[in-house]
Amino acid sequence: MSLYPSLEDMKVDSMARAQVVHQHVTPSSLPPATRGPSAPTMYPALGDYMGLELSADVIARNMPEYQVQTIQPGGTMNNLIAPLSSQSMTLAKSIVTQAIRPVVMCKDKDGKCGVRLHAVNSGIFVCYVGANSPAALAGLRFGDQILEINNVPVAGMTMDQCHNLLKKAPVNGINLAVRDRPFERTITLHKDSLGHVGFHFKDGKIVGLVKDSSAARNGLLTDHQLLEINTINVVGMKDKEISKVIDNSPSVVNITIIPHYIYHHMISKMSSSLFKDLDRTPAV
Amino acid sequence: MSLYPSLEDMKVDSMARAQVVHQHVTPSSLPPATRGPSAPTMYPALGDYMGLELSADVIARNMPEYQVQTIQPGGTMNNLIAPLSSQSMTLAKSIVTQAIRPVVMCKDKDGKCGVRLHAVNSGIFVCYVGANSPAALAGLRFGDQILEINNVPVAGMTMDQCHNLLKKAPVNGINLAVRDRPFERTITLHKDSLGHVGFHFKDGKIVGLVKDSSAARNGLLTDHQLLEINTINVVGMKDKEISKVIDNSPSVVNITIIPHYIYHHMISKMSSSLFKDLDRTPAV
Repeated sequence: MSLYPSLEDMKVDSMARAQVVHQHVTPSSLPPATRGPSAPTMYPALGDYMGLELSADVIARNMPEYQVQTIQPGGTMNNLIAPLSSQSMTLAKSIVTQAIRPVVMCKDKDGKCGVRLHAVNSGIFVCYVGANSPAALAGLRFGDQILEINNVPVAGMTMDQCHNLLKKAPVNGINLAVRDRPFERTITLHKDSLGHVGFHFKDGKIVGLVKDSSAARNGLLTDHQLLEINTINVVGMKDKEISKVIDNSPSVVNITIIPHYIYHHMISKMSSSLFKDLDRTPAV
Repeated sequence: MSLYPSLEDMKVDSMARAQVVHQHVTPSSLPPATRGPSAPTMYPALGDYMGLELSADVIARNMPEYQVQTIQPGGTMNNLIAPLSSQSMTLAKSIVTQAIRPVVMCKDKDGKCGVRLHAVNSGIFVCYVGANSPAALAGLRFGDQILEINNVPVAGMTMDQCHNLLKKAPVNGINLAVRDRPFERTITLHKDSLGHVGFHFKDGKIVGLVKDSSAARNGLLTDHQLLEINTINVVGMKDKEISKVIDNSPSVVNITIIPHYIYHHMISKMSSSLFKDLDRTPAV
């Protein structure tokens, strides 16, 4: 049961495995008449087929930014899991782990952390991170769940109680325990030859899927809100700007989504003027 | 930014790190008068403190089922991430990855796969897996999203269209592309000395958290439905039986949950008689 980030990865991987198994099986298991050095492989080598020579050597010499994954004939090929998406520089950074990490935060010269919290189902969630704020520097993101503030568990507290805890905290060394965005998940899509990934959105909410597109193949769901595109925060952005972010993305697009009803609940107490001042730096 | 499965892991890990850093720093950076072989460590060794000798050797000799994680003094300790939860045999198996895997399924002697599907937000989800059915053997679980049936993308299809695809499929070699339970997530909890993890539930739905319990510390949320406990399916179980499953669990309890409104939607077309016949085998 291998797990792949996108359906395209699974298809390419299974083709590559079929090729290798075929090459490996041919010499020994077929009758002698059909064997020999000229036995055809299932897919022709790219050099023979299109005059392209994309061997590991050529790629390493001319395109050092691509990692070459060598397939060992007959090997277990445990490494070959994401032949397409592994070229995405943001894949690992955009994956939502839903695990717990420690965060140390401070206050700025005005005594602010630059974070707003919201209570959902007895949990406390980050619903706003200001640009260039201490919270942004500490790596807090929309949808992170705060478990502890300076060793005080916050489960069941109200928004105001948590904001008061932060107000009372010292200027330096505010210790948080944070669960990584429990309501969110990341989907990896691949642009087609026209640069489309295949979904429609309105006010950042996914409202429709294009038939046979990467979005439909990979199981993107409607009624979900776009939060990040290749780790760039798009909360509260205008649809035209979101389209630009997608257009500027490389061919592998990692989008982070959240069910719309939870998003709606989280931003319900935020004034829209705050959206102008959101932290939008991509993850480093 | 290390990521831990539970808050207890984070606390124990940071204590262990503090101990090691202290041991490592003492001999060289403190003034000579306070140094020496008798310099106190931050925490006494267990043998000195309680007469318990839990060294790596003793554990390996008497309790081979526990994996001993040796802390290298001054090392980077990249391996030491889950000092408590790593002893849980089901942790890796119960984690929801939300990635894609291929599944090959067949039909039983009556021509049934033993699976029921439900359409949510233009996606197709597994809402029932029968006991001892081909679907159970293939490893399908409640909440899995079906992306393709025999290379036909199912995005946007109705429940009936998908069931028809399965009916028309041959008896053997039904190829599915499956995304691992996109609406679900796993939370790792630790039992306290009384064997409690600290949440109340009614009809399998989490309705309250006990203050200062492991559930509250780890950010369990109310209004979520219990689906699995240490990979045992508890969908449709009576509350008394669920309590028994928790009581029979080892001290690390991995629970898989889903927002209640999605669960309610998924089981809305299932007759309650089906619940008696659900696959409840834990993951192997």
